[in-house]
Amino acid sequence: MPTPSPILTPIGRIATPWASIVDCPRNGRQPDPAPVCTVTVFEPFVAGLQGLEGFSHLVLLYWLDQARAPQLVFTPPFDTTPRGVFATRGPRRPNPIGMSVVAFDGFDGPNRLKVRFLDCVDGTPLLDIKPYLTTTDAEPGASMGWLAPHATRNPNTE
Amino acid sequence: MPTPSPILTPIGRIATPWASIVDCPRNGRQPDPAPVCTVTVFEPFVAGLQGLEGFSHLVLLYWLDQARAPQLVFTPPFDTTPRGVFATRGPRRPNPIGMSVVAFDGFDGPNRLKVRFLDCVDGTPLLDIKPYLTTTDAEPGASMGWLAPHATRNPNTE
Repeated sequence: MPTPSPILTPIGRIATPWASIVDCPRNGRQPDPAPVCTVTVFEPFVAGLQGLEGFSHLVLLYWLDQARAPQLVFTPPFDTTPRGVFATRGPRRPNPIGMSVVAFDGFDGPNRLKVRFLDCVDGTPLLDIKPYLTTTDAEPGASMGWLAPHATRNPNTE
Repeated sequence: MPTPSPILTPIGRIATPWASIVDCPRNGRQPDPAPVCTVTVFEPFVAGLQGLEGFSHLVLLYWLDQARAPQLVFTPPFDTTPRGVFATRGPRRPNPIGMSVVAFDGFDGPNRLKVRFLDCVDGTPLLDIKPYLTTTDAEPGASMGWLAPHATRNPNTE
């Protein structure tokens, strides 16, 4: 079987309350309460959702299609020092793939998922859904480098 | 500025001890002790690493270039029930992008990172490096659906 080429196929679309980049929150856990967003999976991929029920959290990957051209070094809005893009979660990356850990509130139809804690623009193309695993993905004691003084709150790790 | 098209650009390469898929561990935290792997970032992207020191953990995205064609439903090796690929971390995804939360053991040269907890094949193309943020990425109490009885151990969340 051929190796897939590094070209992406959108598998769905993400609906959020934020119409443009300037409307987006700084991160998906900043709005309180976080609004419920809808992930619609395109028909050819719906079979892949089987067995997703029971996971409380998911990892979503999506294509930041409204991000401007990559910028390897920039000064974040809440900072005064230039930072490399790989030390930030900013969107202007060489491969503009967004990643969010979201709460999964169940299905709203066979191809629609209700999730919380997204921060992307309405209409963002979905690339992948993965189950969140505490065994490999949770590092509650991780240190946050230059971002530590700018940290937003996570009640789960306090 | 033009919107980037959904074509990926490898930004580096990952060196691991596993020469082929059959050699890879079930997940990056299964080997004990986990071997130190090396991430080499290609020269045009090295400036983006500025500010990465001080983060104890990173999120790596990589292209699973040795994965076979997508398979939407399959029975995992340690299971007897067919599962949708989006309810698994298996590699045969519509967009075969791997995601790992790794421990960052610092730089080994200006463009080489030492990391632990990878499970991918030696030579895997790197797509992105993100800082791991406890504030948005750590959900130590998440429930793991059908994978719960198959969970491997994570001493950080026990």
